[in-house]
Amino acid sequence: MAASLRLLGAASGLRYWSRRLRPAAGSFAAVCSSSVASKTPVGFIGLGNMGNPMAKNLMKHGYPLIIYDVFPDACKDFQDAGEQVVSSPADVAEKADRIITMLPTSINAIEAYSGANGILKKVKKGSLLIDSSTIDPAVSKELAKEVEKMGAVFMDAPVSGGVGAARSGNLTFMVGGVEDEFAAAQELLGCMGSKVVYCGAVGTGQAAKICNNMLLAISMIGTAETMNLGIRLGLDPKLLAKILNMSSGWCWSSDTYNPVPGVMDGVPSANNYQGGFGTTLMANDLGLAQDSATSTKSPVLLGSLAHQIYRMMCAKGYSKKDFSSVFQFLREKETF
Amino acid sequence: MAASLRLLGAASGLRYWSRRLRPAAGSFAAVCSSSVASKTPVGFIGLGNMGNPMAKNLMKHGYPLIIYDVFPDACKDFQDAGEQVVSSPADVAEKADRIITMLPTSINAIEAYSGANGILKKVKKGSLLIDSSTIDPAVSKELAKEVEKMGAVFMDAPVSGGVGAARSGNLTFMVGGVEDEFAAAQELLGCMGSKVVYCGAVGTGQAAKICNNMLLAISMIGTAETMNLGIRLGLDPKLLAKILNMSSGWCWSSDTYNPVPGVMDGVPSANNYQGGFGTTLMANDLGLAQDSATSTKSPVLLGSLAHQIYRMMCAKGYSKKDFSSVFQFLREKETF
Amino acid sequence: MAASLRLLGAASGLRYWSRRLRPAAGSFAAVCSSSVASKTPVGFIGLGNMGNPMAKNLMKHGYPLIIYDVFPDACKDFQDAGEQVVSSPADVAEKADRIITMLPTSINAIEAYSGANGILKKVKKGSLLIDSSTIDPAVSKELAKEVEKMGAVFMDAPVSGGVGAARSGNLTFMVGGVEDEFAAAQELLGCMGSKVVYCGAVGTGQAAKICNNMLLAISMIGTAETMNLGIRLGLDPKLLAKILNMSSGWCWSSDTYNPVPGVMDGVPSANNYQGGFGTTLMANDLGLAQDSATSTKSPVLLGSLAHQIYRMMCAKGYSKKDFSSVFQFLREKETF
Amino acid sequence: MAASLRLLGAASGLRYWSRRLRPAAGSFAAVCSSSVASKTPVGFIGLGNMGNPMAKNLMKHGYPLIIYDVFPDACKDFQDAGEQVVSSPADVAEKADRIITMLPTSINAIEAYSGANGILKKVKKGSLLIDSSTIDPAVSKELAKEVEKMGAVFMDAPVSGGVGAARSGNLTFMVGGVEDEFAAAQELLGCMGSKVVYCGAVGTGQAAKICNNMLLAISMIGTAETMNLGIRLGLDPKLLAKILNMSSGWCWSSDTYNPVPGVMDGVPSANNYQGGFGTTLMANDLGLAQDSATSTKSPVLLGSLAHQIYRMMCAKGYSKKDFSSVFQFLREKETF
Repeated sequence: MAASLRLLGAASGLRYWSRRLRPAAGSFAAVCSSSVASKTPVGFIGLGNMGNPMAKNLMKHGYPLIIYDVFPDACKDFQDAGEQVVSSPADVAEKADRIITMLPTSINAIEAYSGANGILKKVKKGSLLIDSSTIDPAVSKELAKEVEKMGAVFMDAPVSGGVGAARSGNLTFMVGGVEDEFAAAQELLGCMGSKVVYCGAVGTGQAAKICNNMLLAISMIGTAETMNLGIRLGLDPKLLAKILNMSSGWCWSSDTYNPVPGVMDGVPSANNYQGGFGTTLMANDLGLAQDSATSTKSPVLLGSLAHQIYRMMCAKGYSKKDFSSVFQFLREKETF
Repeated sequence: MAASLRLLGAASGLRYWSRRLRPAAGSFAAVCSSSVASKTPVGFIGLGNMGNPMAKNLMKHGYPLIIYDVFPDACKDFQDAGEQVVSSPADVAEKADRIITMLPTSINAIEAYSGANGILKKVKKGSLLIDSSTIDPAVSKELAKEVEKMGAVFMDAPVSGGVGAARSGNLTFMVGGVEDEFAAAQELLGCMGSKVVYCGAVGTGQAAKICNNMLLAISMIGTAETMNLGIRLGLDPKLLAKILNMSSGWCWSSDTYNPVPGVMDGVPSANNYQGGFGTTLMANDLGLAQDSATSTKSPVLLGSLAHQIYRMMCAKGYSKKDFSSVFQFLREKETF
Repeated sequence: MAASLRLLGAASGLRYWSRRLRPAAGSFAAVCSSSVASKTPVGFIGLGNMGNPMAKNLMKHGYPLIIYDVFPDACKDFQDAGEQVVSSPADVAEKADRIITMLPTSINAIEAYSGANGILKKVKKGSLLIDSSTIDPAVSKELAKEVEKMGAVFMDAPVSGGVGAARSGNLTFMVGGVEDEFAAAQELLGCMGSKVVYCGAVGTGQAAKICNNMLLAISMIGTAETMNLGIRLGLDPKLLAKILNMSSGWCWSSDTYNPVPGVMDGVPSANNYQGGFGTTLMANDLGLAQDSATSTKSPVLLGSLAHQIYRMMCAKGYSKKDFSSVFQFLREKETF
Repeated sequence: MAASLRLLGAASGLRYWSRRLRPAAGSFAAVCSSSVASKTPVGFIGLGNMGNPMAKNLMKHGYPLIIYDVFPDACKDFQDAGEQVVSSPADVAEKADRIITMLPTSINAIEAYSGANGILKKVKKGSLLIDSSTIDPAVSKELAKEVEKMGAVFMDAPVSGGVGAARSGNLTFMVGGVEDEFAAAQELLGCMGSKVVYCGAVGTGQAAKICNNMLLAISMIGTAETMNLGIRLGLDPKLLAKILNMSSGWCWSSDTYNPVPGVMDGVPSANNYQGGFGTTLMANDLGLAQDSATSTKSPVLLGSLAHQIYRMMCAKGYSKKDFSSVFQFLREKETF
């Protein structure tokens, strides 16, 4: 399907995403029943870097799991732990009426749901299907329609927070779907994340994540351009950051995640841009934002230029570095 | 002089600038001797919307003034108040050894200093000349050189904060010049502003202001693009703003000055983009940023595109609206 | 299908496309058997502004037609002319082993081929299916795969040239598909166009069209910016055009289709930008180019900015004007 | 002077400029009296890579020269040939009433005219001063004003064509100034160039050159993006170039100077981007275009992005390569 080709870029945009959140508004506090009374099994499809620790947090909360991953090895931990491993998404749907999918791309999600042995082949009426993959909101809406036809419920719930947050159960979930079902989704998501935010109709979870990352990319590049210009105009980097952060230039990228080495400790720029949120992953999320803007005919001048800049960086050796390395990319001096 | 032509655009970028500052770091607290003991007169050149209330705050603090403006009417208040009005910048320099200039463009500043009847014609050795105009840092450096030749001292000290802040004495001054002279400048600037920030060598005051405004423009347009995209993807504007502001998309434009009508009260977007910081003024500051980037060969991809966007808005009827009206500019629906 | 949503924008990008071609290289001369000996029927699906005159040219060359359009009225001409009108793409496939589809968007094309009553439901082994719609190359490849599974052959053959060229049989076809089948396609396409260009594997016909239009958009906007800047710098528009056209700035937009009123006769700029190639259609083709660039991870900095500029113009009342009206869009003076 | 700082970037933009011109319109044919009757001496200031061969062509036509260059060595050839070498621009002005200046930047031009020992110190009434430097049109206008005050005539006449064209006397001159004086200028310029184009009032010669180079940069980057996208979509580069060049995508960069290795012979892309027009020089001309656009408030969205792209390339090792190397810059594959 064409979508797959176009969206292949979105691969595992969620894997290492290490966004730091400001203190959560109370209204977003996560809810999680920790009663370990007999609970009905929960299906989990996609046990990658993120899915694995997420599923383990469900186990800790006493939920029996029905496991499936295209790579059998990915299921080993769970088999050893006595969880039930099956051989297809369809089999998961046969044995569980609450299923969480955590897949790297739209095409993988489409296959898990609509494929020959997909969930839809055996999904039970009334089942709750939660997709935590980061994909095109348009694909989420398509999946929701197909799920609805089967009398089941679909919600998109992409995450913020990387492997660390997945292990510690501190992810943020942005949830789109029918509001009446939000409480039911919250019961499970609250076991894996500290914040579960209801965003509106199906697809708005994806929309919220895409929007945040687009603005993040723009302000990060803007911060890098500004710091570089200021330095060349004779300003001390630390002083410039201080001035911006007490003024209207303030943004998360200048204050909490400054891209200039030496300005802050404990951020990727202080560690040769290791760790953090990879440039490739940001480029992929910007590709999703670009697709959404094109299909909704929304002008995104800075957003699409930011996409192109991260695209170029991927071809210049920055693909694995944190996305704040755009400062390094821009500051290289001209040679003669 | 070519500079003048190029910089004519910078006209009074400072006039209505209504940036809201976060609580100032203590280190930036303003100092102002309020002893009303006999003080030597202070020269003030440029009594426009900003200069007028600034000069009046100096009067309040007991400084006798030597006044000059190209428009005699602008001097009337001060004449009535018994201050001395003279007929040229040179005459000001003859009667005062501390002079503040507050002019709309580089060319006006060049004339006031280097013109036929300019300050330099009669400036006394050891005089302190403070230029609070917003102009090209390169011009500030040129003026500083010429002033130095005469044995006097020049500092650039552009302001943040609009007419309101000028009246209440709550401006922020970003000061560039010899550090030893900073205390002397602070004595006067502290009477007109609540924050006086030392930025480094001559020109860095201008550089700091230009850098902040460039990043501000980028994050404002980015916020407008993001809010518009999110709304078209089905998100509620208030909820989207809430999500961005608890996440890494957070910036001053999304949190303190949101451009979407209905999201916040007390900001220009809540009042049809009246008041605030005019689009033309932002376009002019971005023109200065562009010039500085070109002369220092600093890549500013988003910065120059932001410049072009505000340039276009000026030609589409937005010149007098607050710069957050870029949201309105982008959200217009396509017509068929 | 997600593709549909994303590509809905591509609507009828081909309808009025009035690109003027330079004298064709002989190698591209069209071939068309005009022998009126008994010919086997040709299926034609999509009888819109373009499909109608194209199909009539096939009739003129003696090909019996099997007609289908979602709008029965669109078939009337052909029914009156004694051609066979059927009630679904599947029925066309049952009665003809050579079929041409001419549809406005990817989703329409997907439905005509893969829908419940689509061509694939009854296509015969060995059939030749030619899609002249302008759609995402990725969709063309997907369709080709499905067609191949049925033992038939698929070729993409988007057109250049508008309704006028369609009537006079002077369209240009850019053809992608198995080279061995090109001659067979040429026999039919040669009856509707004066140039039939073989571009390579399936999808390359679409790629060629998208690439040409992206470069066209970039050079048109560049010409408009340049002419506007030159005029503001005091150059006479006609003289500037003359200088560019004898120099390295030369391009089709400056020489053959100049966007400045008064510089040339017989072009849209001489007629208030009426006729020509609509801004909306260019924006849609740029959307396809953007999608292709995103999925192939190709940096297109100017291409994506051109897309955004035409996107904005659509929302500023230019949607129906010729795409050269970008000059008018840019030259509006700033108001104060 | 601030202008100088800003324009330092313009350094020798003209040195290697190797634009290939299409057959000239007859109206632009150069005129040059080749009578070797006693001629009055011509002053020449600036004997660099371009000035040296230009001055020698004047000698060949029998004009005695009055020579000056800041680097005495640059005058040696002429001293040996018996021409008169003097020690300042002022001395040149004292001995010649027709003077040609060929300098690398605005600041050099400003010094040669307005400096302590500048031309204006001793220029004779009625003298004809022709500046062939490539500088900011605003600076040309300023110089013209000062020259006029002295009762002399100033014309700007920047050149196209590199060292080769300078040697063979095949440069193109774009001339701005009073039309009545054009014939007099043509007599001298016609000895050094094959085309002398009158562009209008003072500054329009510079404007014409800047405009052409901006459009050239835009269409070259556009061609590079398009060829790269097409190749990644499966098109053969030579075939794609052929299709573009028979269609509306046609431009000088795709047809005469194609940036893709293997598509054409005898262009920089066929020789690892050696020779041709250096990326740094293009970036400098784009800096001038940007300055002119900012001062005239002309939106140049693609023009300023092109400027930024060449700016970045200069910092990525492309500064000395031909400007068509932007294809190589863009096509680098993403690494993982």
